[in-house]
Amino acid sequence: FETENRLTIPISGTGSAAMEAAIANMVEPGDPVLICINGYFGSRMVDMAERYGAQVHTIHRPWGEVFTPEEVAQALQKNPAKVVGIVHAETSTGALQPLDAIARVVHEHGGLFLVDAVTSLGGVPVGVDSIGIDICYSGTQKCLSCPPGLGPLTLGPRAVEALKNRTHKVANWYLDLSMIEKYWGKERTYHHTAPISSNYALYEGLRIVAEEGLAARWDHHRRNAELLWGGLQNLGLEPHVALEHRLPTLTTVRVPKGVEEAQVRARLLKDYNIEIAGGLGELKGQVWRIGLMGHSSSRANVTLLLAALKDCL
Amino acid sequence: FETENRLTIPISGTGSAAMEAAIANMVEPGDPVLICINGYFGSRMVDMAERYGAQVHTIHRPWGEVFTPEEVAQALQKNPAKVVGIVHAETSTGALQPLDAIARVVHEHGGLFLVDAVTSLGGVPVGVDSIGIDICYSGTQKCLSCPPGLGPLTLGPRAVEALKNRTHKVANWYLDLSMIEKYWGKERTYHHTAPISSNYALYEGLRIVAEEGLAARWDHHRRNAELLWGGLQNLGLEPHVALEHRLPTLTTVRVPKGVEEAQVRARLLKDYNIEIAGGLGELKGQVWRIGLMGHSSSRANVTLLLAALKDCL
Repeated sequence: FETENRLTIPISGTGSAAMEAAIANMVEPGDPVLICINGYFGSRMVDMAERYGAQVHTIHRPWGEVFTPEEVAQALQKNPAKVVGIVHAETSTGALQPLDAIARVVHEHGGLFLVDAVTSLGGVPVGVDSIGIDICYSGTQKCLSCPPGLGPLTLGPRAVEALKNRTHKVANWYLDLSMIEKYWGKERTYHHTAPISSNYALYEGLRIVAEEGLAARWDHHRRNAELLWGGLQNLGLEPHVALEHRLPTLTTVRVPKGVEEAQVRARLLKDYNIEIAGGLGELKGQVWRIGLMGHSSSRANVTLLLAALKDCL
Repeated sequence: FETENRLTIPISGTGSAAMEAAIANMVEPGDPVLICINGYFGSRMVDMAERYGAQVHTIHRPWGEVFTPEEVAQALQKNPAKVVGIVHAETSTGALQPLDAIARVVHEHGGLFLVDAVTSLGGVPVGVDSIGIDICYSGTQKCLSCPPGLGPLTLGPRAVEALKNRTHKVANWYLDLSMIEKYWGKERTYHHTAPISSNYALYEGLRIVAEEGLAARWDHHRRNAELLWGGLQNLGLEPHVALEHRLPTLTTVRVPKGVEEAQVRARLLKDYNIEIAGGLGELKGQVWRIGLMGHSSSRANVTLLLAALKDCL
């Protein structure tokens, strides 16, 4: 996470559990919350925040686009919020949300900045401390290339303060950080049995990340994504997201007219053992989603996929 | 679980997550709930049920004893309950709760019978279908001898009916069974990324259980527990729980007067690589807890422990 936060732990559940931990611990009944929706996972944040009793306001962008700081500022002027939630890398659209200026806007309005980094952590810079993200979570099976099952989560000092000042118990026992954080410190208090095999797997995955180095890792994701984008252009395929907001870890490509998108995916899988995903939600049937994350972001994978796509189209 | 229930799944979290799933899905705000407390995990049920807005009533028994059907009937006459929660095998006390007659009482009063089988499943008969347990959950790392990280959960027809008839959304997104159950059926709906490595581990663990056979497995737990109990008696140590309610998978033994209990545990670990646990909650400092579960319930382990205990006392 590029952070010095003390409360940085893997939640004993998947990335979605970490998302719920972030929201459950930050939201108290009646709290005003602003969620920025430009894809599938923004809507999930809304669903969760409502279950914890938040007064949710939303702003929207078409799937594949990103938010400007001005849009967030306008929304906060209209409706101040305790927490502002946004997705850094939208797996459903392939868009990479710039965070820096929005973080400043959120803090100027006294809010906590909550960021979903499921598809970005380990693949592109997140910069929790340098940007001033208050709550950030991810998953293990994306750019960290570990088995799925844990949700890395970090809380900065403002978020820890908010946790300590809660007037209601966290409405979720399993994900209650005020209890889980007691694993740190002198008197270790038992909360639940940790999924220790998954923790070892994460440790080994992080060791490999450290061995490569974060900067080198971001660079290899970037290089392979650019190789992919160039190759797609040569095939006459059009990416869904504008270049300046395109995610190196997941690329969405428009399905050409007249092509049966599911058939292409089935052939790729059967003949080449390559799995690419279909569109989610609004983009269902309209795009393919090509993941290049962690270990699977390699020159060989990109080259094979491009050749295989050429064959299947 | 000895059940034909269709909605039988491993929750993507530990046994505590399965406990929370059971409660979150069965409890709506204001629902009357009866929890039977005779150890650590009964109290945890209360904490969870309250977080989901239940009107909780409790009945109590000293740690190490079990409830009679009459006690449950009396409590339900005073305060009818939608859900009655009880722990089958209390890891904190070593007591095994008979369930059969209590299930009948609960159903006569129109309640749903919710049973914690974390420390019993795979070690002693649970009998979900034969007894008529409506909601039952367990963990993978106890008598199933799998890595920790999943919480097997089963809902019978009455519980599924209650889930369908809810008037409030489940106040927990990650554990919302009305969404998770869509993994079964024609249109598989994505909910969260499954911790697939843990699921394979559970599959393999269940294969080994099936190979041994459930009856043989119960029998080996029973035989090794009796060997342990006999050996403890020879050492002059006194079990905490009366013989007729003693759990074969976890035995609590009273710490003899004048013995530093933590020192004995430390020596066992250092010299013999054997870990036994100290007392939890009310029994802290008063008992040792000796687990004999799944693969670790073996004649060799019991024999070594008895010899090592003799040496350390």
